[in-house]
Amino acid sequence: MSLARFSINQMTVKQLSLPELVDACRELGVLGVGLWREPVRAHGLKATAALVRDAGLTVTTLCRGGFLTATDPAELARALDDNRAAVDEAATLGTDTLVLVSGGLPAGSKDLHGARERIADALGELGPYAAARGVRLAVEPLHPMYAADRCVVSTLAQALDLAERFPAEQVGVTVDTYHLWWDDTAPAQIARAGASGRIHSFQLADWTTPLPEGVLNGRGQIGDGAIDMREWRSYVEKAGYDGPIEVELFNDALWARDGREVLAETAERFLTHAV
Amino acid sequence: MSLARFSINQMTVKQLSLPELVDACRELGVLGVGLWREPVRAHGLKATAALVRDAGLTVTTLCRGGFLTATDPAELARALDDNRAAVDEAATLGTDTLVLVSGGLPAGSKDLHGARERIADALGELGPYAAARGVRLAVEPLHPMYAADRCVVSTLAQALDLAERFPAEQVGVTVDTYHLWWDDTAPAQIARAGASGRIHSFQLADWTTPLPEGVLNGRGQIGDGAIDMREWRSYVEKAGYDGPIEVELFNDALWARDGREVLAETAERFLTHAV
Repeated sequence: MSLARFSINQMTVKQLSLPELVDACRELGVLGVGLWREPVRAHGLKATAALVRDAGLTVTTLCRGGFLTATDPAELARALDDNRAAVDEAATLGTDTLVLVSGGLPAGSKDLHGARERIADALGELGPYAAARGVRLAVEPLHPMYAADRCVVSTLAQALDLAERFPAEQVGVTVDTYHLWWDDTAPAQIARAGASGRIHSFQLADWTTPLPEGVLNGRGQIGDGAIDMREWRSYVEKAGYDGPIEVELFNDALWARDGREVLAETAERFLTHAV
Repeated sequence: MSLARFSINQMTVKQLSLPELVDACRELGVLGVGLWREPVRAHGLKATAALVRDAGLTVTTLCRGGFLTATDPAELARALDDNRAAVDEAATLGTDTLVLVSGGLPAGSKDLHGARERIADALGELGPYAAARGVRLAVEPLHPMYAADRCVVSTLAQALDLAERFPAEQVGVTVDTYHLWWDDTAPAQIARAGASGRIHSFQLADWTTPLPEGVLNGRGQIGDGAIDMREWRSYVEKAGYDGPIEVELFNDALWARDGREVLAETAERFLTHAV
């Protein structure tokens, strides 16, 4: 039983500043962190890179790039520029993985297929740029309840259909229990992802109900919900994945508590339910 | 352009009493209604049957049976009894279709697969009972956001995997745009359902965001959301379906308005977006 593969996604304890997060990790024996661009920018990119490096922490992912479904050429060009900047930031932070949330339907559009194809076009632009900087893109399928307004990639099969058009060192996927747990075809798709070396990130969150308004900030603490974490861990491990296991929770109730206490609880839940 | 195939699901205008609903249908030229057990019981089963028959209305479905995932034997026996009662009510109302919402995970359970198998066992009990009374069971896949607490059958493929264990005159499926629109494998599954004569009900609702707390009562009026209704209608029609098209909306904003006005608007939206 160890925290060797545990990583805390910064969003889980967003009430902690970056120095507070690094201190808490050191104190609790947490070795990995998943970072988000906005708090990194607020603390300073180079300052953050130095902070985590000096603390001996591994940056397991940077969240997030993506939002690549615009039909307006100027908007799409801005999105591509922003994703190249995200790749550069990932490289500076020393992580090899940039998580992509692909984006929803443009306002008024009903064309899911077209939106998914525009993501493929964008990956063709961004994949070589990322790989040249030692960064892999990890397309994250989001739960189908986000298909309209956040991410038209709803299943692992769809994510792999996109990723497999490119070399695995350019584009892979993020496997997140929160988004995939309901899908009885996901275990076979995890095997497919592993076979081509495309599981670039593995994240845990539990499914609890009732969902809050807007359905963004109700991801359950590990062990509180409907998902068997060991089962999903076994799927990725059978597929050859032996990388970090990131816990990423968006949860108003957790954010209202002391961040250090939430981090300690999350590490303990990981040991109880996922090891 | 006609309302010939349009049916109004009673839940869309639940503020109307049954006599008010029947009056409004006559006035607007609506020929079909989908009924719910609770308001039917409140008005009286035989009184309702007479009311709709005398008005010349077709009862396109009765909603709903199901909730077949209990592990407790007594609870499961009660559920089976209740479903047999629902079949009897459907027969009395003169509809050939009982919609089934299968049920969520029992409290504390994380076993989706086991819950899905218990549904198959229950269908084996209920299918012959229903067919003997001229009623077909229509397993409705619900959106994956309901998998934990309402319906462990989340995709049309899963619903067909269950239904195909039984004759089509016993068990088929409900195709509802609200639940399936995000799924790029659904069109092929609709073809599969049609090939074995298992599209027992076709329902429309639009997808609008943000979702409300609890995600139950935010189904969008036709035309207000992300779903191309003509596209989905073409899928079921290519699969050979020429039956009623029911509009079933759960929507607090619609329920707060005058029911007759909502029915008129819904019929008009059907003509504009689905014909």
